[in-house]
Amino acid sequence: MKGGSVERGEGASPRKGVTRGLSIMDFIFRIIAAVATLASALAMGTTNETLPFATQFIRFRAEFDDLPSFVFFVMANSVVCGYLVLSLILSVFHIVRSKAVNTRILLIFLDTVMLGLLTAAASASASIVYIAHHGNPKANWFAICQQYNNFCERISASLIGSYIAVALLIILILLSVVAISRN
Amino acid sequence: MKGGSVERGEGASPRKGVTRGLSIMDFIFRIIAAVATLASALAMGTTNETLPFATQFIRFRAEFDDLPSFVFFVMANSVVCGYLVLSLILSVFHIVRSKAVNTRILLIFLDTVMLGLLTAAASASASIVYIAHHGNPKANWFAICQQYNNFCERISASLIGSYIAVALLIILILLSVVAISRN
Repeated sequence: MKGGSVERGEGASPRKGVTRGLSIMDFIFRIIAAVATLASALAMGTTNETLPFATQFIRFRAEFDDLPSFVFFVMANSVVCGYLVLSLILSVFHIVRSKAVNTRILLIFLDTVMLGLLTAAASASASIVYIAHHGNPKANWFAICQQYNNFCERISASLIGSYIAVALLIILILLSVVAISRN
Repeated sequence: MKGGSVERGEGASPRKGVTRGLSIMDFIFRIIAAVATLASALAMGTTNETLPFATQFIRFRAEFDDLPSFVFFVMANSVVCGYLVLSLILSVFHIVRSKAVNTRILLIFLDTVMLGLLTAAASASASIVYIAHHGNPKANWFAICQQYNNFCERISASLIGSYIAVALLIILILLSVVAISRN
């Protein structure tokens, strides 16, 4: 009897340790992803450029909210950032109680939805950034990046944070699934 | 002893039945999603419109591959459709062996990646469709849908299949996670 219980204890301890390790990685990745989305939202949301010349009636000025896709981008990044910060509570809960299953399923579902939202926002903006850079001669849409150079660099760079967060969310979903399967 | 084994048998049987039910739903949803992405790819890939008038040198013709986002859309939908058809093999395997865990984790990972790919393609196209419909006066991009009416209706409609498949993929991920957690 005694030998059996020691054996079981040895079998459960490293397994629990691995699950706790997964939960700690989950926590760290969530913080990084939250910072990345916050950086993206701020970089895009503060982008504007006024050209150093003007006619009597027109001032040449580009702002991020001239394009609806960029507004969606800022909103989606803010929402995902807020979600990631709130989800840290559950992440800490999983570090403490590594056997929790239902809350992990909830987190996987929400992570998946947020992954969809963030990917949608990043890609919608990326396709607009592409047109801003290269234009489209067939549709008579002209590249605006020759004039608004700083504006374009800024909106292109702000996509990076979003794509980092997308990659991290995919890893987060996988970590949660592995944690559930080990219980 | 006998009573105990009967009890265990009664406890395991409905649980196995539920997991099998989840696997069958998984199979059906995969077929629907595959058909939806195939329909999207075909609808977008066969879209073109030639206007019934021409100058001596120019024929007014719009094709889906005039816009890089639409080419990406067709490719992504084809890839996801191919993946969904191949994944039916694993789905059948899960109906037969409802206790399998590792293959389910593999499927969740691939489903998540495909969800990202499909959402990216659908949203990139949606933002271009929006500009085609409404244009953007700030960037001097004009709406092309006044001229190419049929073309625009077709590309807008082809997005529907993709978004149905995105919703189904989210449900598929959730089904697999629930199936794993019940083992």
